[in-house]
Amino acid sequence: MSRQIGLEDLDDIARGAAILGAGGGGDPYLGRLLAENAIRRHGPVTLVDLDELADDDMVLPVAIMGAPTVIVEKPPAGTEFGTAVRALSASLPREATHIACLEAGGLNSMIPIATAAECGLPLIDGDGMGRAFPELQMVLFTLDGIASTPMAMADDKGNTVVLNTIDNPWSERLARSATVDMGCAAAICLYPHTGAQARSALVPRTLSLAATLGELVRTNSQGDTATALAEHLGGQVLMKGRVSDVSRRTVAGFARGTAVLSGLEEYDGASMTLEFQNEHLVAIRDGAVVASVPDLICVLDLDSGEPITTEAMRYGFRVSVVMLPCHDRWRTPEGLELVGPGYFGYDHQYVAP
Amino acid sequence: MSRQIGLEDLDDIARGAAILGAGGGGDPYLGRLLAENAIRRHGPVTLVDLDELADDDMVLPVAIMGAPTVIVEKPPAGTEFGTAVRALSASLPREATHIACLEAGGLNSMIPIATAAECGLPLIDGDGMGRAFPELQMVLFTLDGIASTPMAMADDKGNTVVLNTIDNPWSERLARSATVDMGCAAAICLYPHTGAQARSALVPRTLSLAATLGELVRTNSQGDTATALAEHLGGQVLMKGRVSDVSRRTVAGFARGTAVLSGLEEYDGASMTLEFQNEHLVAIRDGAVVASVPDLICVLDLDSGEPITTEAMRYGFRVSVVMLPCHDRWRTPEGLELVGPGYFGYDHQYVAP
Repeated sequence: MSRQIGLEDLDDIARGAAILGAGGGGDPYLGRLLAENAIRRHGPVTLVDLDELADDDMVLPVAIMGAPTVIVEKPPAGTEFGTAVRALSASLPREATHIACLEAGGLNSMIPIATAAECGLPLIDGDGMGRAFPELQMVLFTLDGIASTPMAMADDKGNTVVLNTIDNPWSERLARSATVDMGCAAAICLYPHTGAQARSALVPRTLSLAATLGELVRTNSQGDTATALAEHLGGQVLMKGRVSDVSRRTVAGFARGTAVLSGLEEYDGASMTLEFQNEHLVAIRDGAVVASVPDLICVLDLDSGEPITTEAMRYGFRVSVVMLPCHDRWRTPEGLELVGPGYFGYDHQYVAP
Repeated sequence: MSRQIGLEDLDDIARGAAILGAGGGGDPYLGRLLAENAIRRHGPVTLVDLDELADDDMVLPVAIMGAPTVIVEKPPAGTEFGTAVRALSASLPREATHIACLEAGGLNSMIPIATAAECGLPLIDGDGMGRAFPELQMVLFTLDGIASTPMAMADDKGNTVVLNTIDNPWSERLARSATVDMGCAAAICLYPHTGAQARSALVPRTLSLAATLGELVRTNSQGDTATALAEHLGGQVLMKGRVSDVSRRTVAGFARGTAVLSGLEEYDGASMTLEFQNEHLVAIRDGAVVASVPDLICVLDLDSGEPITTEAMRYGFRVSVVMLPCHDRWRTPEGLELVGPGYFGYDHQYVAP
């Protein structure tokens, strides 16, 4: 059933989406500001469920692509996303009817809200991953054989690029280089798809889920948010600790790095290493892999429960680490080939928790 | 007056165009083969002069972009150029009426012949530089304020990219990255312009000139071709020597390097260094700059007079080096700002010979 996203909803959605971002997907504060500005100017956004779509509706997912370390220092102007939607629309035979989220994340769940407001289009309650992943081809669309192109990119200066590629990894490759040229951040609009395709290729109700998780953090701020979150989603608390080291580098358009945690409370004496490429990829506790892609590895402030993205992680932060289960389709052989540990260069097999 | 380019014309044009390429612009043997194949399949090409254009004609220049060192090892499939023209045409309000050369060169004067044959369009006798330069913005179009975009790129695999940029250097930047991704070579179609614009922004009759120069080399093969060439065009022989060292590297999508020559005949005892970025940029004889961009520095086989491109230069080659004067507009302050020695990082002032 369709409903409205207004200003009062943004805080919870941004916070919850940042949890689903698994360390990536962008900063929820920036995301909230972008959506807030757009709703103030253009009014609230209609959120629709997948079953409300007509089979021949035309859905355009939007997102920001780039290194979150850079984006947080040079936030988007806000105009790029509408430009990307218009650039893509110009190469499509039909008018867009809906906006969608490509991934979940503090920015990437909020940018589509802002874009939907600006374009006067309804937004679909769902996204292409059920989390955030670092590369363009890492969406259920790819598993469904849906092409990422035509794909449009836009920067804050006014440059646009439209790609038509032979497969989705080629889109990732060409778009990543253009993103680096554009200043390590670009607005993207891609995977144009029909209402019928959306019902298979979008993870349903992730914006509603984000709102629920955000509310859980907000109302649970004096309790053990990590445990509450794990229980709510069938996940698991992996660690409580203090960040004792973070090393990161912006390379090939990604924010890559590792964070080391020293155990606190019941984890006293334990140590954990988190390895990330925009998103957390692997959690290694005392030398053993305890969680890895495609499951979500989420870092929360130990006291407030607020999500902490990889680019915001700092020495001294007291955090908890939670594993949340990924969408079922990521655990299939095809799913694991696309986003499993092997793709990212790890030699351990994925074990479902 | 319009005339036909047939198979019998290609050899001279390719050879002469390679001289005008100033070391760059691609290999004339490959260029001839591409044009030959196209003319065999589609018939001869009509060559028209600038004064035959209607003011509102729509002209599309085509070229190959990339590192000649790579292109000579992996020649174009031939299909990319038509793909680029169609990709650009799709984003233009009007049908293309003519094909043009972006630059002069062994490949880049021949590819437009092949493309014109394939597309069934007449080709303009002229090009955007009167020589070859390494970067996209280095054309008279830029001096005339004509935008490089919409610009289309295509590779041999079937990927296409369409750019719309805020200025021509941004096109160079984004297209260069995409070219590197595409394997250091891409078909490009850009600077769409009208017949009226062509009359100012194209150097006239460079294909005819190439044919004349090619014939001069062919018929003069037992004489001093370098001197004949210099006399024909008001240039100057700078050196005769043996290549004693070549160092080159493919970096950022360009073939950069230097060649060292040890003097022969009347240049016995002299030494010359040629520095190149796809094209020759500077000729330094015995420590003094004796020629530099925007003038053409051309290397010919000492005996046969055949042009030698930078990627073909090898240890032991006996060569002559000729300076040929550039188009007048390159010697204006705006021209020198765009393509003079300063742009390429040299601190000497350009001195017209």
